[in-house]
Amino acid sequence: MPRQSIKTDEEGKLAKLGSAIRAARKECGLSQEALADASGVDRSHMGKIERGERNVSVLNVARVADALGVTIASLMASAGL
Amino acid sequence: MPRQSIKTDEEGKLAKLGSAIRAARKECGLSQEALADASGVDRSHMGKIERGERNVSVLNVARVADALGVTIASLMASAGL
Repeated sequence: MPRQSIKTDEEGKLAKLGSAIRAARKECGLSQEALADASGVDRSHMGKIERGERNVSVLNVARVADALGVTIASLMASAGL
Repeated sequence: MPRQSIKTDEEGKLAKLGSAIRAARKECGLSQEALADASGVDRSHMGKIERGERNVSVLNVARVADALGVTIASLMASAGL
């Protein structure tokens, strides 16, 4: 169930970021669970991030980007953000 | 007083992002209060974001970037993130 903050994501920015993370993860040949473990993000939280259901924090985006071997800037650019 | 999540910001990523936001704000000739109001972020929260004392969410970074007329990607790149 999306939290309240998600209601303010009118432009689907979280969904765009989630899709970009998923695409980058698949390029690395990682499962969602493997990326969660590599980045130290809870597995259930990672699923919600990829589906755009969580207003993810900068530090968690940084952890995910690190685990994917990309910068936050390139991840955001891939997401069109 | 920094929240617990900030303790995990060993590499100063939040401080780098905050400095980049402050620099972009000054380039726009905006006061911190004006940027807070333009982005819809609480004034006290904005100060903490600029000082790297808050693990800011993607949606709030998006609001700040929008108000500064830049993309999140370019803001992150300016921050070296």
